[in-house]
Amino acid sequence: MGRNELLAAMKDRMPERRYIHTIGVADTAIELATRFNLDTKKAETAGILHDSCKYADRVWMKEVIKGENMNPLLLEYHHELWHGPVGAYVAQREFHVEDEDLLNAIRYHTTGRANMSDLEKIIYIADMIEPNRQFSGVEELRKAAQELPLDELMSKCITHSIGFLISKGQPVFPDSFQCYNDILQKRRSNI
Amino acid sequence: MGRNELLAAMKDRMPERRYIHTIGVADTAIELATRFNLDTKKAETAGILHDSCKYADRVWMKEVIKGENMNPLLLEYHHELWHGPVGAYVAQREFHVEDEDLLNAIRYHTTGRANMSDLEKIIYIADMIEPNRQFSGVEELRKAAQELPLDELMSKCITHSIGFLISKGQPVFPDSFQCYNDILQKRRSNI
Repeated sequence: MGRNELLAAMKDRMPERRYIHTIGVADTAIELATRFNLDTKKAETAGILHDSCKYADRVWMKEVIKGENMNPLLLEYHHELWHGPVGAYVAQREFHVEDEDLLNAIRYHTTGRANMSDLEKIIYIADMIEPNRQFSGVEELRKAAQELPLDELMSKCITHSIGFLISKGQPVFPDSFQCYNDILQKRRSNI
Repeated sequence: MGRNELLAAMKDRMPERRYIHTIGVADTAIELATRFNLDTKKAETAGILHDSCKYADRVWMKEVIKGENMNPLLLEYHHELWHGPVGAYVAQREFHVEDEDLLNAIRYHTTGRANMSDLEKIIYIADMIEPNRQFSGVEELRKAAQELPLDELMSKCITHSIGFLISKGQPVFPDSFQCYNDILQKRRSNI
């Protein structure tokens, strides 16, 4: 399926505001893929599909997580974390995405994880900095996205996310902590 | 061994400044144990012994961590994290501490962990807020230590530690993240 067909499918699944965010993520993912020499088509597809389950029924998502033997820890954390893994399932079943890297980019776009691929990183980042996002610090991240190497940029983004969560007294999914430590340790071993 | 004998042994192992910190931790631990109805003698002993290996030889500590089958992940993180687990080993071998709770309070005083006992929590907290500590936010934690329930206080302390580490771009040992999530989830289930 092409861009327009996929976008039309997303439009049916989410309110206008989230649809505009979706386009922003897809376009930002293309920009980042261009900057970091990655497959722009894959980046675009992952960007369009990343939030397909943002408004999916929670009871149904819980069933999918159990039925597909996804990480059972997900069910102990906020349902906000479910739409990534379930979105990857939907991308494969309904939109016939078979590329595992693209599926992982959708799967881990909310939490990050250790050992992320470059495509996974740019979808995580695009979701945070696309032009419609507004939060304290986003401009600095957008600037970093044009200047820093990918791992340094990803490190800034995951640090910001975790810092935000702990400043609000919110739990942090273990994949995010592992992402934070992993990327720090890789950056150190590259110095 | 009594207070004076243990303190004398500590004095031989550390510079004056750290010895003064040690007394501060022991006395703060007694205060917290009194406030939270815990064994003040155990709290005092854990406070005195918690930093026995702060200045121990790193090569020797590495050997102990390997030889005693301690968590191998320790060796992938900063050596600053080694003196807790190795300190528990020394407390048992050299100072004949057999109480597992007291040993755990020494073992986890730097990182925290999931499912901490009350004694473990107060040693972690005493180490952070004893009167000689100076850092931005310590006064708020000292005030909290006189007012808040133990889990709420521990939550504030571990949140502060993790926030400090990520603001400095430092790795965070997994036990600390697990401590943070665990105590948040327990507090929520008690609400």
